[in-house]
Amino acid sequence: MADPSAKPVPLLKDELDIVIPTIRNLDFLEMWRPFFEQYHLIIVQDGDPNKVINVPAGFDYELYNRNDINRILGPKANCISFKDSACRCFGYMVSKKKYIYTIDDDCFVAKDPSGKDINALEQHIKNLLCPATPFFFNTLYDPYREGADFVRGYPFSLREGAPTAVSHGLWLNIPDYDAPTQLVKPRERNTRYVDAVLTIPKGTLFPMCGMNLAFDRELIGPAMYFGLMGDGQPIGRYDDMWAGWCVKVICDHLGLGVKTGLPYIWHSKASNPFVNLKKEYKGIFWQEEIIPFFQSATLSKESTSVQQCYIELSKQVKEKLGAVDPYFNKLADAMVTWIEAWDELNNNTSEETSSKQPNGAAK
Amino acid sequence: MADPSAKPVPLLKDELDIVIPTIRNLDFLEMWRPFFEQYHLIIVQDGDPNKVINVPAGFDYELYNRNDINRILGPKANCISFKDSACRCFGYMVSKKKYIYTIDDDCFVAKDPSGKDINALEQHIKNLLCPATPFFFNTLYDPYREGADFVRGYPFSLREGAPTAVSHGLWLNIPDYDAPTQLVKPRERNTRYVDAVLTIPKGTLFPMCGMNLAFDRELIGPAMYFGLMGDGQPIGRYDDMWAGWCVKVICDHLGLGVKTGLPYIWHSKASNPFVNLKKEYKGIFWQEEIIPFFQSATLSKESTSVQQCYIELSKQVKEKLGAVDPYFNKLADAMVTWIEAWDELNNNTSEETSSKQPNGAAK
Repeated sequence: MADPSAKPVPLLKDELDIVIPTIRNLDFLEMWRPFFEQYHLIIVQDGDPNKVINVPAGFDYELYNRNDINRILGPKANCISFKDSACRCFGYMVSKKKYIYTIDDDCFVAKDPSGKDINALEQHIKNLLCPATPFFFNTLYDPYREGADFVRGYPFSLREGAPTAVSHGLWLNIPDYDAPTQLVKPRERNTRYVDAVLTIPKGTLFPMCGMNLAFDRELIGPAMYFGLMGDGQPIGRYDDMWAGWCVKVICDHLGLGVKTGLPYIWHSKASNPFVNLKKEYKGIFWQEEIIPFFQSATLSKESTSVQQCYIELSKQVKEKLGAVDPYFNKLADAMVTWIEAWDELNNNTSEETSSKQPNGAAK
Repeated sequence: MADPSAKPVPLLKDELDIVIPTIRNLDFLEMWRPFFEQYHLIIVQDGDPNKVINVPAGFDYELYNRNDINRILGPKANCISFKDSACRCFGYMVSKKKYIYTIDDDCFVAKDPSGKDINALEQHIKNLLCPATPFFFNTLYDPYREGADFVRGYPFSLREGAPTAVSHGLWLNIPDYDAPTQLVKPRERNTRYVDAVLTIPKGTLFPMCGMNLAFDRELIGPAMYFGLMGDGQPIGRYDDMWAGWCVKVICDHLGLGVKTGLPYIWHSKASNPFVNLKKEYKGIFWQEEIIPFFQSATLSKESTSVQQCYIELSKQVKEKLGAVDPYFNKLADAMVTWIEAWDELNNNTSEETSSKQPNGAAK
């Protein structure tokens, strides 16, 4: 255990869980030790549950494999993907904290232009704790940042901003490209450090990547469902995209903000573009219909909680996307199951909450 | 005259005019000489027409003072503001080029983080010549820039982008703040160089600053009207804002893109916040109603040209903002006059165009 007198207590130490989906030993955590060691980790082990995942000493964590997920969720476990990093959303569901940071195990600490290690988690927390500006664009980017403000012409009534629900971080080195772009530009590396955080305006969709992502679980958690991907499904690599589209529509409806930009992580390894193409190719067609669907989706005034919004959206998915492929009917059902499971594990009464705590899984 | 064999021909040399509104000698051009010298300048002299404005030797320019404006436009000259930098839009109207760059005379050459002088005009031209992405947000910013592309999840059908109508550049040193912010933060300087160009998404308004701005006159020129400001008007310092709101609504309607970000100029001198407050204070109230008006403004399918869109918008201004203050009725009328004057000076037949060329004004 870390000696609390030796290290300063980091921001939100007891209010944030770090969720990591993995199939391998978590040696990558060594590099993150100075920034993650005082936080609690939730590790979601994908693939063979009999494989032992080594976690470097000194980290405080709980680990769930497929057997744990099946045991905890029972028949509802079918909403959690298998053999796909989409399984990470199980970690969002079992967390009891207000904030989540999720990171892939091939992401390392990046350096800023001065050569200093970037504390990605700290920047995400800053992004989440200060307001967003979804209703009007500020040309000097985040107006709450030191040395910046709202520019001339920005309405004063909007300067309080909106609560920030999501902080989407970026990647140096290997950019998050689709398979066709990977194939066409195998050597492209992202070397441009853009020193900005900005709010994605209301009404605008964006491609949300799950590699380096933080969010406020209380504000938007139930919408952070990463869908049905991987084993037994016709599609992969759209888990975070799906979540991003749903989340953005719901944030817009509820008046919440979504930020993108800083912090960067160092993405070390490009995944195999041929494998990716196989996972993605249906999504490449489908997204041409999915995105217009989400762009025109509206939610009713009666939907005032994230859960209500999500259930309403699931009905629209079935109604409007079911015709694209039967997969979307299955996905719409899984969206409902996800909310049921979320509510079961996250009941508001403390007695029920504690009775739902996973036991055997925590180490 | 510059010896063409001695210098490389800059981009769009014969297709772009630089418009500068001023009340003083243009010594600031000395610093811009390497970047501007081969372009044609249109100088709009504000204030006393008898004052002689000195332009450094070697620049190719035409200059218009108030007498010229009155002579050229006759009774329609009342749509051009006096004693306010809004007069610059007269320069947009008399230009015969496809592109305009406009800059304030207190803006100097900025340096990039490596210490190199920034050729702001060249960056604006790059921004205008490559497409914009108004329909979906790309998290790695401008996907057409070297070393960048569309990220995973970006619909392939949208990767051709949309024509870029406007390139909005930023400012190092003195940020473009309103009077209240200037008063509260007198010492704030913008030192953050954000290495990004991005498209303002469709449906999102932004505060467009006229200090460092380029646009495609053929695509959006007739909407670049800087309104009625300054002498005899109840408001100032909203000229560029007004233009920006109108331009954005019309670009969104016509499927055109608006970019913001690079290039930076060095803004040398903060204007007087007390004077600014006097000019702005009505705008500070009014913008609370103007912005929702523009946010909800829609144009009919029948409006397919910028002129038609602008006339339609002028009617909505009268109808919806006339109740805010009688000033908006006057402004709506001036919007119509502006379009009439624009069409008079920009007739498509070459014979008529040449007969409308200003004579005595060009030096």
